[in-house]
Amino acid sequence: MLKIPEHQVAGHQACNGQLGPLIDDSGRFYKPLQGDERGSVEVAFYTSFSSNTRVPDHIRKFFPSFYGTQLLEASDGSGLRPHLVLEDLISSLHHPSIMDVKIGSKTWYAEASEDYIQKCFKKDRESSSLSLGFRISGLQVYGNNHSELWKPKKKSVQNLTADEVRLILKKFVSSTSPTDPNSVPDCSFAFTVFGGSSGILAQLLELKAWFEDQTIYHLNSCSVLILYDKESVLKEGSPGAQVKLIDFAHVVEGRGVIDHNFLGGLCSLIKFISEILTSPDDYSSKVCLQDSDLSNCTTEDCNKK
Amino acid sequence: MLKIPEHQVAGHQACNGQLGPLIDDSGRFYKPLQGDERGSVEVAFYTSFSSNTRVPDHIRKFFPSFYGTQLLEASDGSGLRPHLVLEDLISSLHHPSIMDVKIGSKTWYAEASEDYIQKCFKKDRESSSLSLGFRISGLQVYGNNHSELWKPKKKSVQNLTADEVRLILKKFVSSTSPTDPNSVPDCSFAFTVFGGSSGILAQLLELKAWFEDQTIYHLNSCSVLILYDKESVLKEGSPGAQVKLIDFAHVVEGRGVIDHNFLGGLCSLIKFISEILTSPDDYSSKVCLQDSDLSNCTTEDCNKK
Repeated sequence: MLKIPEHQVAGHQACNGQLGPLIDDSGRFYKPLQGDERGSVEVAFYTSFSSNTRVPDHIRKFFPSFYGTQLLEASDGSGLRPHLVLEDLISSLHHPSIMDVKIGSKTWYAEASEDYIQKCFKKDRESSSLSLGFRISGLQVYGNNHSELWKPKKKSVQNLTADEVRLILKKFVSSTSPTDPNSVPDCSFAFTVFGGSSGILAQLLELKAWFEDQTIYHLNSCSVLILYDKESVLKEGSPGAQVKLIDFAHVVEGRGVIDHNFLGGLCSLIKFISEILTSPDDYSSKVCLQDSDLSNCTTEDCNKK
Repeated sequence: MLKIPEHQVAGHQACNGQLGPLIDDSGRFYKPLQGDERGSVEVAFYTSFSSNTRVPDHIRKFFPSFYGTQLLEASDGSGLRPHLVLEDLISSLHHPSIMDVKIGSKTWYAEASEDYIQKCFKKDRESSSLSLGFRISGLQVYGNNHSELWKPKKKSVQNLTADEVRLILKKFVSSTSPTDPNSVPDCSFAFTVFGGSSGILAQLLELKAWFEDQTIYHLNSCSVLILYDKESVLKEGSPGAQVKLIDFAHVVEGRGVIDHNFLGGLCSLIKFISEILTSPDDYSSKVCLQDSDLSNCTTEDCNKK
């Protein structure tokens, strides 16, 4: 009944006998609790968030529904282990194009251990986080032909320039081949996916307004998941574009201060997406990704950072 | 004709034969160029900014007017030295209450030397910058009686908690004694100074809108100066409240990305000031500053960091 999620683009994955999340047919996502503090922090966050009356109703849709924790046989065969039981965000989508964007120019925080701070400080400087205020942790993009799926290695998308991120955001909403390095993205789904009153940009702006005000949580090292269904766009012209927040293993209390690190990075991502809507033709001819970046992830890559 | 500015609250100061800025009677402020790269970066910024047609007119008012550079006898007696010639922002104010707020949770940037990065990384963590997204670099607050001036030591205001910053922002706009540790700030000038269509909050929001969009400059280690004239408030009810940006020795090109570090910190400052307007009675009774923080700066302190 439990199986390995097909459409995971970032984070630990359960393939090759590793520890990772599982899904079932009823639309639930089971995320193994990390044994250290991260597991308990994430449970504490979901528990607090679920019952916090200071969180406005219109903000709850950006977070996966939470159904408690459950002991399950872990995917690595190590026996029973507690799992977070969450909504499977992908279950209703047939050919989901997905982007996992880790928000913030820094992923560390004052309360972390010195080792963790130094590790993150180094990674933030080596990745796009420092320059862009976010880094792409992973993505997959379906072509118009559903047999075509672009899912580059996670490592290859974490250290991109601004122009490369623009190119990837355009590939994400184009009808042209995502895997062909010579194809120029046509952005033909940009308005449908990014634009409009219920598109990705409108949702990101709704989130931004909350982050300008909320001082409850600081979402360190948290990701914005951007997703839509390529099949629905092609068949119905309505992509079901969604913004979701995931990964709360490093949340700390806001203590009366806004999450200025998350907000700054979110505003940077918003600016990139706005530009594609207002100037879809800029940059596209000037940049191409290196060949190595375009190769698809293989099973052996699935646990590589 | 040249003299030492009376109302400088942060930065290098020219007292005690040190190198620092000078002013004249015509409303100009002469800032000595630092001999290293910082001097040339600041000249380059002012030169670029003055002629950059991508900067909207309504944004120029937030920056001091720039009149080129001039060789002048340095305040430390070391001979002729190039100085930036700028608008003296204080010259028209009789009893200016001033706050210098260094914006951003980090003051370092990728292009800086490793030594500089490590020095700033340490200072940002030790000060309020990391937690609040900004730190107060210095301030002075006049009492209703103009002979009363509160000008705490710079070091004592750089590492404040959120509650202490709230208290200081309230003292800044109160009629109660700023130097008396037992007086509870009454926020009686909060609306006049912070509120209204031309108050500090409206000006900060105008700046914020620009930072959400502009990708020309990253203003590393730059300060927002918040100032108003206590005498004008008391006599005319119009404080001439002004927001200015100063200190551009660490500006780098934006290269198509917004300054997410500055923007996040600015949004945090905006949230603090908004709260004082909407809930002036929160917190004030719960916090008091330590005695040592309240003592006035003496001449010997004037160059202490």
